[in-house]
Amino acid sequence: MRVNGKPFRTIWVADDGRSVEIIDQTLLPHRFEIARLTTLEATVAAIRDMRVRGAPLIGATAAYGICLALGADAGQHSLDRACQALLATRPTAINLGWAIEDMRRHLVPLAPAERVAAAYARAAEICEEDVALCRAIGENGLRLFEDLYRRKSQSGQAGPLNVLTHCNAGWLATLDWGTALAPVYLAHDAGLPIHVWVDETRPRNQGAALTAWELAQHGVPHTLIVDNAGGHLMQRGRVDVMITGADRVTAGGDVCNKIGTYLKALAAADNGVPFYAAVPFPTIDWAISDGVREIPIEERDGREVSHLAGVDAAGVLHRVRITPEGAALANYAFDVTPARLVTGLVTERGIAEASPAGLRALYPERREGQVADGAGQS
Amino acid sequence: MRVNGKPFRTIWVADDGRSVEIIDQTLLPHRFEIARLTTLEATVAAIRDMRVRGAPLIGATAAYGICLALGADAGQHSLDRACQALLATRPTAINLGWAIEDMRRHLVPLAPAERVAAAYARAAEICEEDVALCRAIGENGLRLFEDLYRRKSQSGQAGPLNVLTHCNAGWLATLDWGTALAPVYLAHDAGLPIHVWVDETRPRNQGAALTAWELAQHGVPHTLIVDNAGGHLMQRGRVDVMITGADRVTAGGDVCNKIGTYLKALAAADNGVPFYAAVPFPTIDWAISDGVREIPIEERDGREVSHLAGVDAAGVLHRVRITPEGAALANYAFDVTPARLVTGLVTERGIAEASPAGLRALYPERREGQVADGAGQS
Repeated sequence: MRVNGKPFRTIWVADDGRSVEIIDQTLLPHRFEIARLTTLEATVAAIRDMRVRGAPLIGATAAYGICLALGADAGQHSLDRACQALLATRPTAINLGWAIEDMRRHLVPLAPAERVAAAYARAAEICEEDVALCRAIGENGLRLFEDLYRRKSQSGQAGPLNVLTHCNAGWLATLDWGTALAPVYLAHDAGLPIHVWVDETRPRNQGAALTAWELAQHGVPHTLIVDNAGGHLMQRGRVDVMITGADRVTAGGDVCNKIGTYLKALAAADNGVPFYAAVPFPTIDWAISDGVREIPIEERDGREVSHLAGVDAAGVLHRVRITPEGAALANYAFDVTPARLVTGLVTERGIAEASPAGLRALYPERREGQVADGAGQS
Repeated sequence: MRVNGKPFRTIWVADDGRSVEIIDQTLLPHRFEIARLTTLEATVAAIRDMRVRGAPLIGATAAYGICLALGADAGQHSLDRACQALLATRPTAINLGWAIEDMRRHLVPLAPAERVAAAYARAAEICEEDVALCRAIGENGLRLFEDLYRRKSQSGQAGPLNVLTHCNAGWLATLDWGTALAPVYLAHDAGLPIHVWVDETRPRNQGAALTAWELAQHGVPHTLIVDNAGGHLMQRGRVDVMITGADRVTAGGDVCNKIGTYLKALAAADNGVPFYAAVPFPTIDWAISDGVREIPIEERDGREVSHLAGVDAAGVLHRVRITPEGAALANYAFDVTPARLVTGLVTERGIAEASPAGLRALYPERREGQVADGAGQS
């Protein structure tokens, strides 16, 4: 997608054909800076410090981390050490393990002299596969949006298609396009009138910091709101469709996503607003069915609730505490939206009903009980 | 309630018997400072700048503003001018108009020489009436909490009564006790094990800044959470009852309250958690019935969404922007929870069913169509 009018992805090989460049996402939305990674250690730090985030992007970055390690030393010990160091950066990101294992499987059989070129080639393929996955989700979502907009116009309602989204499932979380935002970008580029309500998404504010930024850079009309506002907007008919990403979807169609998604899905159901989750196949966890009972919810550092970073009037960045000193804090990262509240799952194969039968119909080769091989946006 | 171990109200006459003292609520939770008001102008500024807020407290402060104006000049022109200046501070706060009109009605018939003493006497009565109202709500809510705790214990569940609240309907919004928090304080003081989940309440963060602070000062166990978390907590059985204040309640029992209340009420209904609003009689608007259709929702400055104040590690207060520069923002202050989602209304007369019949049964002297004579917490 576009930044300052120029096309960008979230990670790419630099002009020297060896170094890797990323957008430093910890500085957004206040500064747009490109960081150059030239060593395994720098790559490990970039993932750990969340300069890159979003499961697909973490996986791709890890793949390039292996390339950089092999560029310095293509031996087996170097490969093992790189895989180990990268795997330890974000223990819960399933894509990370998947990408590292994929790289290892391709590289172990090769002679050390062949490994560097093969590693860069495979890392590039991993990136292209993600772009294709997101693009396919976007095309399926685009047809849905076109249909919803046609019905809105035919019923005599004026204005663009109003989409509400929560957190950041945009191109910054993937290689390009995003998941939930892929149909938004395709619709906007195709000339469909579209406007996005962006939940700020406390506590980490990925909506305010990332989604609002990337939509603005690409020129998509949007309005930033607090997480509390969506129910009111739906009551007043100001939301036509809600779409989010997902961190994990069960074989039964329950959607685990950023904390607060469940509240907004309840409001959507109460007001007849369709609620979709955009789900690439690695996000489906065929091993579990009842999301509320079976998905453990990560509890994160309370300082994400008590502290926020922002710029003052002079543009100086400060990290400030907004709560009473020493306040007891709880910080749950995700919640589970039961399948009964989900209108559909927008996948790369089409739109599935959020049910065991709906998912089986799209993925006949899968069976419940199989373990997911990748997941997550966060 | 207590601050640093000492009993406090939100406004009182100073030792000199003339000046008025308030807690400067704009500095909370970072600094506890008492401000002394000695002129009408200072009182007008204190209300306008939200150093005092909460409808009952605004009304009482306006009453004392008239006392201070009359202390300088007890003539009719001075009284008129004071009423006018105070009324212009917060145009939407219904209690403000009610308190000013009440003072005027008491003072106009008197000779100027008698007015100052009469004004202080009437202002003190207004304060005592609010304390009695909140205390009565507290006692009715306490019986509810005792009943809920008894049932929780009898069903074999361990732990305290877990109460979730949104925004600040505590003693800082009133003269003492608060509305939604009055039963919490009475329960805590009576030894009932109680724990409060405090929604931070974006965008103005009254939960994080005020509710968490006042509960901590009084020693009530509580945990601060982001607004997104409540649905997840209810799904996991971590909330026994939800209680909020209300800015306006219709004759049909619809509850207009701080934006986000509706989302939490939906989650409460979805999980069998009872949801109550604490409602003193002036908050009931007998003139309207359908809250979603008839209550206009105030749209406030977008800078409440984009900017936040907090202290850095050195304790220095900064106001920072947390959104992209120039981002389009929408900021709706309230939403409406339909009566069907409200388990009951805790009033000074008892607990009413949220329905026309339920409200009429408690207030037989009122009829739908009568205009409310006061309202609001915000």
